[in-house]
Amino acid sequence: MATGADAQPPKSVLGRALGVLGAFSDSSPELALADIVAVTGLPPATAHRIVAELVAWGALERVGRGRYRVGMRLWRVGALAPIARTLREAALPPMQDLAAVTGHVVHLVVRDGFRALFVERLAGQEDSTVRSRVGRDMPMHASGPGKVLLAHSPPQLVEDIVARGLPRLAPGTITDAATLRSALDDIRRTGYCLSYQEMTEGVSTVAAPITDGEGRVVAALAVVVPASLSLQPFVPAVQLAAAAASRRLGRQPAE
Amino acid sequence: MATGADAQPPKSVLGRALGVLGAFSDSSPELALADIVAVTGLPPATAHRIVAELVAWGALERVGRGRYRVGMRLWRVGALAPIARTLREAALPPMQDLAAVTGHVVHLVVRDGFRALFVERLAGQEDSTVRSRVGRDMPMHASGPGKVLLAHSPPQLVEDIVARGLPRLAPGTITDAATLRSALDDIRRTGYCLSYQEMTEGVSTVAAPITDGEGRVVAALAVVVPASLSLQPFVPAVQLAAAAASRRLGRQPAE
Repeated sequence: MATGADAQPPKSVLGRALGVLGAFSDSSPELALADIVAVTGLPPATAHRIVAELVAWGALERVGRGRYRVGMRLWRVGALAPIARTLREAALPPMQDLAAVTGHVVHLVVRDGFRALFVERLAGQEDSTVRSRVGRDMPMHASGPGKVLLAHSPPQLVEDIVARGLPRLAPGTITDAATLRSALDDIRRTGYCLSYQEMTEGVSTVAAPITDGEGRVVAALAVVVPASLSLQPFVPAVQLAAAAASRRLGRQPAE
Repeated sequence: MATGADAQPPKSVLGRALGVLGAFSDSSPELALADIVAVTGLPPATAHRIVAELVAWGALERVGRGRYRVGMRLWRVGALAPIARTLREAALPPMQDLAAVTGHVVHLVVRDGFRALFVERLAGQEDSTVRSRVGRDMPMHASGPGKVLLAHSPPQLVEDIVARGLPRLAPGTITDAATLRSALDDIRRTGYCLSYQEMTEGVSTVAAPITDGEGRVVAALAVVVPASLSLQPFVPAVQLAAAAASRRLGRQPAE
């Protein structure tokens, strides 16, 4: 989200304030005023005034020595977003069951532009080395849930993602367009995705789509297992949990 | 968070934009432009311009027929808040274990001013009638986790909350100051709280404090059980889960 020090800062006051919020990221969750100035390109006095107003409202909070983090009030507003309030609430009970039955990490993932975004992550029985985190994103082509979402996206998105390149992240990453298209066909045909060490070496996933009340694929559910295990036995449990989440999501009142 | 139509709208552009975000709430997660105008007291043209800029950035999203909800990008920024990124991540695995072992709803709660705020809620084995929801708040005096947090708050906060009144929410709500102070003493002495139908009729809770690396109580963990059950047998499991969360929280790098 960082725009870089050489970017033109937005002209509107609100645009500048949103730029300050956007300076905080998964890799920089805590920033000094000087960092905010560097990322946004705002004059220090302007940045200081905006930060003070954001702190007063509760969008940011001061954490000592002139450092800032995102505040509780902004978290509360963000928790009103449909992916948190509707999707996550529908998916959570089946996710808990899937984590309890398999003992492995379980992910809930949605598409955010060209990337796949972790909406929820439940722990497995062992402290895992998977570097997933709620709010973090990853490439669409290099993971099981990413490919499930891609398989059910408009064809143009697949073309755009192929055109942007398919970088290798791990030994199993699909890096050529024909193999990716064939894998997406398989996902649409079978209703699930087996992904072998595509994002992280030593880690594989089994993923399945979650649909809303109109049958649209809105998310993917995945279980993360050591690459040494056979994946096929996890398929029924993942499909069952995804079906339970879909059913719960379809039942949600429109509000 | 609503300020009401008769409130003076803030003078700064940023203050007005924050007022628009603050118009969204747990009871009003989706608003039409006319609702936003009514809640903020902004002129319609100003509200429209602010909403358009918030939508363009991703803080809000349009959901058809001129209605708006909180957007995915604001959720992502909110997920960077320490209660989500540090506290919730530390507490989640023991919460999953507590929900799996007991089969009941599990809550993670922090203090937000004079109120207690649900940071996380895991499901029990049965569809529950508990009206808890992530991001929703409740009175401090009328629940187990609220009383745990109150027991470990500055004494002045207890006085302030008593002065604001102790309304009855359910048959078991503590409504007089002496009984409340005595209950808080018990919590500090025993290290846990049994709460009998204080917030919701038919529902009781067992709660225990979560401490950070410096031993400060930063949150409360609670299991929610039918009022017909004996609470004492749940105490060791809740205390153990709270201790595991505290240990994990103390291990977190400061970043």
